[in-house]
Amino acid sequence: MRVLVPFDARQPKTRLDPVLDGDERAAFARAMLVDVLDTIRASGHTPTVLATAPVGVDAPVTVDERPLSPAVNGVLADRNLPVAVVMADLPLVTPDALGRLTDLDAELVLAPGLGGGTSAFLTRHPEFRVDYHDGSYRTHRTWARERDVTVGTVDSFRLAMDVDEPDDLAEVLIHGEGRGAAWLRDAGFELVADARGLTARRG
Amino acid sequence: MRVLVPFDARQPKTRLDPVLDGDERAAFARAMLVDVLDTIRASGHTPTVLATAPVGVDAPVTVDERPLSPAVNGVLADRNLPVAVVMADLPLVTPDALGRLTDLDAELVLAPGLGGGTSAFLTRHPEFRVDYHDGSYRTHRTWARERDVTVGTVDSFRLAMDVDEPDDLAEVLIHGEGRGAAWLRDAGFELVADARGLTARRG
Repeated sequence: MRVLVPFDARQPKTRLDPVLDGDERAAFARAMLVDVLDTIRASGHTPTVLATAPVGVDAPVTVDERPLSPAVNGVLADRNLPVAVVMADLPLVTPDALGRLTDLDAELVLAPGLGGGTSAFLTRHPEFRVDYHDGSYRTHRTWARERDVTVGTVDSFRLAMDVDEPDDLAEVLIHGEGRGAAWLRDAGFELVADARGLTARRG
Repeated sequence: MRVLVPFDARQPKTRLDPVLDGDERAAFARAMLVDVLDTIRASGHTPTVLATAPVGVDAPVTVDERPLSPAVNGVLADRNLPVAVVMADLPLVTPDALGRLTDLDAELVLAPGLGGGTSAFLTRHPEFRVDYHDGSYRTHRTWARERDVTVGTVDSFRLAMDVDEPDDLAEVLIHGEGRGAAWLRDAGFELVADARGLTARRG
């Protein structure tokens, strides 16, 4: 199956600004993207990157300068179904988790992200379009319910764990074995204990 | 299978202090506990509460005033295996997620929690003991690796999502359908959009 991976190549991961400068955010975002592409290939699927600007990775890249939702919807309108879309900031995703997304038998399969987003989905329904505003997981569920479209949900921590904020980096160091985790370690991040549990600090 | 649910009946959920007073924290913690007990029964298993003080719920309660780790380890030393232990602050847990924990064929099955904790586990190994300090998930994995004990991991957002801090309440409102979510709604919490996505605010 062809799996689309949207990627912001211009201003990636701005909310990591408190701990990473612009070049570092770009490098870390690219490392996470490569993790996602590797996992898609390890699952037997074929990734395509949908980027806001050219990006040098070992996969076909479609450049679309529009915001995320219209860019993804342009692809959904053009492609043969099913289409799966997996976010680029999921460095913990595993072939097992992706397989649970692609193997579920429903017209629309959703993997929720932390904070109410949609980390990944697979659509077999020709009319499904995304709306990646706040709380898109509920918006997408409501769309399906109102049309009697069957929905499957993937209960996966590794798909839910999108990396947006400094607090998220600890999960990458705890569970990650790919390039995102390696990039953080090379940049000097390590785990220390705080009130929440473990947190990532730069040594 | 008998499933143990540790519960702090004296000072539950102190990190919710910024948004809930002491009586509210006790009521919300109890609502989450009831959600977990209901889910264990719906999975065909039998819950027992291991509490630091008496608590009125529809399940057997063992009172042990010791801290969490020695109290749980006391049970692990006494009980026939397998024993499963599921935390009481997992109001999103489903029978499906619990089934993935109990059905995995390994000597030690771990479900990681956000921040590096151990949300739930099942042990079939007579020597396994818990150590619920920071980063217990890695500690428990290391224990197994050093002894060639087989480990299974459950990749579940609903098991990972322990409710400790005000930021966690949004996930309960987004995904919860039980008493924890109902308690929050009755207390006036609702979802609003912020930089991270959706967050819970008291109206």
